[in-house]
Amino acid sequence: MKSEEKQIYAGIDLGGTSITVGIIDDDGNTLVSDNFPTEAPSGPVAIIGRIAERTKRLGAQQGLSFEEVVAVGVGSPGPLDLATGTVILTPNLKWENVPLRDMLAERLGKPVVVRGDAVAATFGEWWAGAGKPYQDVVGLTLGTGVGGGIVLAGRLHEGFRGIGGHIGHMIIVAGGRRCGCGNLGCLEAYASATGIVGRTQEALAKEPDSMLHGFEKPLTAKKIFEAAQEGDKLALHIFKETAWYLAVAINSILNVLNPEAVILMGAVANAGELLFRPLRDHVKDMAFPGIYESTKILKGELGVLAGVVGAAGIAKVARADRLAQS
Amino acid sequence: MKSEEKQIYAGIDLGGTSITVGIIDDDGNTLVSDNFPTEAPSGPVAIIGRIAERTKRLGAQQGLSFEEVVAVGVGSPGPLDLATGTVILTPNLKWENVPLRDMLAERLGKPVVVRGDAVAATFGEWWAGAGKPYQDVVGLTLGTGVGGGIVLAGRLHEGFRGIGGHIGHMIIVAGGRRCGCGNLGCLEAYASATGIVGRTQEALAKEPDSMLHGFEKPLTAKKIFEAAQEGDKLALHIFKETAWYLAVAINSILNVLNPEAVILMGAVANAGELLFRPLRDHVKDMAFPGIYESTKILKGELGVLAGVVGAAGIAKVARADRLAQS
Repeated sequence: MKSEEKQIYAGIDLGGTSITVGIIDDDGNTLVSDNFPTEAPSGPVAIIGRIAERTKRLGAQQGLSFEEVVAVGVGSPGPLDLATGTVILTPNLKWENVPLRDMLAERLGKPVVVRGDAVAATFGEWWAGAGKPYQDVVGLTLGTGVGGGIVLAGRLHEGFRGIGGHIGHMIIVAGGRRCGCGNLGCLEAYASATGIVGRTQEALAKEPDSMLHGFEKPLTAKKIFEAAQEGDKLALHIFKETAWYLAVAINSILNVLNPEAVILMGAVANAGELLFRPLRDHVKDMAFPGIYESTKILKGELGVLAGVVGAAGIAKVARADRLAQS
Repeated sequence: MKSEEKQIYAGIDLGGTSITVGIIDDDGNTLVSDNFPTEAPSGPVAIIGRIAERTKRLGAQQGLSFEEVVAVGVGSPGPLDLATGTVILTPNLKWENVPLRDMLAERLGKPVVVRGDAVAATFGEWWAGAGKPYQDVVGLTLGTGVGGGIVLAGRLHEGFRGIGGHIGHMIIVAGGRRCGCGNLGCLEAYASATGIVGRTQEALAKEPDSMLHGFEKPLTAKKIFEAAQEGDKLALHIFKETAWYLAVAINSILNVLNPEAVILMGAVANAGELLFRPLRDHVKDMAFPGIYESTKILKGELGVLAGVVGAAGIAKVARADRLAQS
């Protein structure tokens, strides 16, 4: 093995509607990537077969060979069994006890490591995105649900049973809105796209003047964002309120973990300043003196590639750990 | 220096009403300890002088010499400037910008390290108490306020600006009860002795039959505990509710940090099973499948010595780090 030569890694981001795969270099740059529909009803064997096929073909046109890839990382919805790389359950894909790591390793002929999708995205932003200058980073993915990840001193913090980083399931309003997990008042019940739509629907009945009444059904977070941009009072209120709920959770994260940076990713973070301006103001109000000023609240920079880059980075670290032990 | 010889350390726990000092051996055993009133109105110079005097005298009767102490740790109320060991502000002691570390180092002629009181207590329980078998431990001190500390892989996690571990200021009821820190809905506003008394006082108006009406004023958490033991309906309800608020915070801690053990210390934890039984039941209800079963929720074992032992342990680690760097 030419150890002085720079290595390349493959990253895979498995989503409920689409899958992204990429080849990533030693510094976290994406050399090539591909995206294709998940086709969830086709089932795990077909999907994993398609992932393997598309990953192997990556970069053929750019003169890259999959043979040169030294390790593969996957970001997957969960819950996962990290020790075996098994998907225990995914509501979106309807998978149950799928040995994702071993099935992919067999088809790719490479070592594979599987981590949570939000954990991978956070690691990607820390390694090669908005979190690059910082040691301790907490990431939040604001999509259909709210995921999270924690990087401390450049290492993932996953906890004793690997559930660390589930920031979406911090309870911020004890006894509050019902969350998909069954508990009441989780951050996810308020600040996910689902939570935003739910809160808007409830408020719409009392706001007959909102332009959202005229929007084509079904209501989505994107449509609410568009209405807010048009100045719709209710939509603007919903985004301000979302920022407040996020600030409550982020203030707790600052008080418990005190990271250097908090990075927001996912579709809801694309609302940009409409969300970030009130969010920063609320955190400033809530945080201990001096803490807001020393903490960066950032939007992710890698967009849809965060998961792929992070999964490859996790594969890189796992490989280095194995080499160090051998 | 005979490096093979076991070292001894001094630990100091600075409280608003009393101060505990002790000499601790290399394994976290308390060889000797002393406790005396703080006499807060006498001011920092007199108090620090008294601490130095009592610490130097420790163990004279047992044939221990303070000369043999290699390092000193202090657990102090805060907020603190960890880099300089300065007490920025303590409401109880009414100290402001007191250079505690340097003032003590000068009087003791030993290296001194200063950390938060709850951080020290958590480290003590991890090193030599209920947390001894575990790698990752989160501690909560339930007293006048609610403090916290985090030990990950055997090291304190203090965060970028040293405020990590402030679990008492996690917001568990957004928009809820006013906390001493100015925010609404912190855990401290519900589960501290102050919060327990406040909630009871508000509820008493609607519970004319409670035996607490007959208790001598002022109402304290201890009196409410005694009434609960006597079967008072309101007092029992308050303790169950306290357990529920604690469970909400602990569930968030499990989802974010997923430690092996959570250790409750301080006067409120002395309520024992009256608190721990409903607490464990609620965490079991809230936690992700399998997580409750793999997480220990424990009462501290070191009692009032946790802070002294932990401060000495922190001094030991700081000394080892200095030696490793030199």
